[in-house]
Amino acid sequence: MIFPASEYQARLKKAQNLMAARDLDAMLLSAEVDFAYFAGFHTRFWQSPTRPWFLILPASGAPIAVIPSIGAALMQRSWVEDIRSWQAPDLLDDGVSLLAQTLSELKPARIGLPSGMETHLRMPLGDFERLKTLCDAQFVDDANIARDLRVVKSPAEIERIARAADIGGRAFARVGEIAHEGVSMRELFRNFQRLCLEEGADFVPYLAGGAGALGYLDVIAPAGDERLQKGDVFMLDTGLQRDGYFCDFNRNFTIGAGDARVIEAHQRLLEATGAAIEAARPGVLMSDLFHVMDKILSKGQTAASAGRMGHGLGLSLTEWPSIIPTEMMPIEDNMVLTIEPSIMVEGDFLLVHEENIVITPNGARVLSPLYSALEAL
Amino acid sequence: MIFPASEYQARLKKAQNLMAARDLDAMLLSAEVDFAYFAGFHTRFWQSPTRPWFLILPASGAPIAVIPSIGAALMQRSWVEDIRSWQAPDLLDDGVSLLAQTLSELKPARIGLPSGMETHLRMPLGDFERLKTLCDAQFVDDANIARDLRVVKSPAEIERIARAADIGGRAFARVGEIAHEGVSMRELFRNFQRLCLEEGADFVPYLAGGAGALGYLDVIAPAGDERLQKGDVFMLDTGLQRDGYFCDFNRNFTIGAGDARVIEAHQRLLEATGAAIEAARPGVLMSDLFHVMDKILSKGQTAASAGRMGHGLGLSLTEWPSIIPTEMMPIEDNMVLTIEPSIMVEGDFLLVHEENIVITPNGARVLSPLYSALEAL
Repeated sequence: MIFPASEYQARLKKAQNLMAARDLDAMLLSAEVDFAYFAGFHTRFWQSPTRPWFLILPASGAPIAVIPSIGAALMQRSWVEDIRSWQAPDLLDDGVSLLAQTLSELKPARIGLPSGMETHLRMPLGDFERLKTLCDAQFVDDANIARDLRVVKSPAEIERIARAADIGGRAFARVGEIAHEGVSMRELFRNFQRLCLEEGADFVPYLAGGAGALGYLDVIAPAGDERLQKGDVFMLDTGLQRDGYFCDFNRNFTIGAGDARVIEAHQRLLEATGAAIEAARPGVLMSDLFHVMDKILSKGQTAASAGRMGHGLGLSLTEWPSIIPTEMMPIEDNMVLTIEPSIMVEGDFLLVHEENIVITPNGARVLSPLYSALEAL
Repeated sequence: MIFPASEYQARLKKAQNLMAARDLDAMLLSAEVDFAYFAGFHTRFWQSPTRPWFLILPASGAPIAVIPSIGAALMQRSWVEDIRSWQAPDLLDDGVSLLAQTLSELKPARIGLPSGMETHLRMPLGDFERLKTLCDAQFVDDANIARDLRVVKSPAEIERIARAADIGGRAFARVGEIAHEGVSMRELFRNFQRLCLEEGADFVPYLAGGAGALGYLDVIAPAGDERLQKGDVFMLDTGLQRDGYFCDFNRNFTIGAGDARVIEAHQRLLEATGAAIEAARPGVLMSDLFHVMDKILSKGQTAASAGRMGHGLGLSLTEWPSIIPTEMMPIEDNMVLTIEPSIMVEGDFLLVHEENIVITPNGARVLSPLYSALEAL
């Protein structure tokens, strides 16, 4: 558990208020991020797809964990006191009847399930069908309560994200130690993860990058055996975790002097980033942030090939909302966002830049150490 | 793409044969492991929950990827040629109508979805409901075709898992460099990941462990700030990846001389492991393997608190099947399994040991460097 119980109690209370407004008698959660947010339950064991995990938020009262026995001891160290477990995996009944029985104690008419964008049900579809036959209740969508609660962060959360960003910043400051002509991308990725760990990351769940004379072809590729060449621009984008919270930002560097077109395009990325940071104040819409950047990058032609120019950030590498032209959500105090414009070079090559910010009443505070110019190594 | 196209074509062919037997006109896949297995598509971007990804296996012919535009360039480097993409995230229609339209071209009556244990549908539930209204076809379970195909590995896959296990073995051989009295578990975890990277891991998606005078309380805990003390036994369990394939094994060590009860219990774990490795031959059942170990550990009282004593291993940290008393699947050539017995010390404390094996006609070959005795550091 990262925080004192009061932090989780406050989250539950907010969820229960929203559940009351939506006439939900319980919420059924199954995803890693929901266990982290409501239970303070953190483990890398989510990497194993074998076992389903369930967390029930009742309309009032304390949460109930219905989980595999392998996780019971760890859950006992969280603030959740009502823990029911079964010896998973069970080929005949992998927690389904225990879950149904636990839900029935709450006598719910309507059970909310995360069903909107950025969510999924982490249990076998077949077991979900069986659960529905075992429960009298109706399963309905949760009106995005679980997802949307995480958009505005508490001071304690902001502190953790800021710490993760500090770690990322220190790792990026050392890239000169590991990147030079002839280094393979695979080696570069490996060494950059090492730097993140040395600077204090607990885990480095996300790393992507690319390299080329004029940019890269995409922003999600893993590393191959291709080697950095003189004049290349390369990008590393890290999602490292400390205490369960992510930072998510990137840096571009050149090996020696970069191509003038790259330098110019990168300068425009920094301008767009700066303009978005300047504009990011309470009341401004996500769509406004998009257009502020897009105007600088494509003269208003909305060309963001990545599909968006930033997003929420916290317990998950990417969170609600997206910075896209159709997102009319207003910015609020204590939102944590990534600002992530991209630009094409000579039609085929991509450059992307990313910073992390938190919104204050006076505007954005940059959590990642703001990049001032494309650095040549 | 890790392998030549022929590897993926062979997998598709096997799936299509099974689909014909089950009267499935297409399979709809959405999970990371299925994209890796059938498309050779690897990225850490699955960390982002924002966008759904779809891979369609038709009854005959080539697979079709229906994916966010951000992934199109990377998918073009795979063997999949039919790539349809949309600019995700799209608040109004996040790929659902494109997916429905693509499916409709195949005129399927029955579309198989992974629905059994160890699977889940990685798309919003609400979008799945909408997809069903847009498709004439019936969505049915895939009879575990996608999951079960991965149980028996190809020679190329075994080579990759063996390489990952070699990397893990070299990292464990260096634990003496990083573990000593007074080191915090957090620091130990961080440094062990560093060793894995230095020895050649691409990523270290999984690490868990524990420490104590008589053992640990669970086997999935992340690290805290508690420090190793003289006489402690500690365990590190790593799932590192190389070229997309995992190893998954652990080692216990003591800080100085360990407690006699720990040494004795650990010796029994090694005996149980050795007996299971000896027994693991084609035709033997998973349940047999369980009982071989359980007999040594609990004198036949079936006390495996982790719920099982091993599992499949490959593109995912844990794969089908489980080594449990109820699993009657016979062992086959080229299965890769973990052998993972656990034992209690003084009722409350746990010790677990794990090795990775591949089945040959002559019995098991151990991929992880077999641990011969509890090592004191």
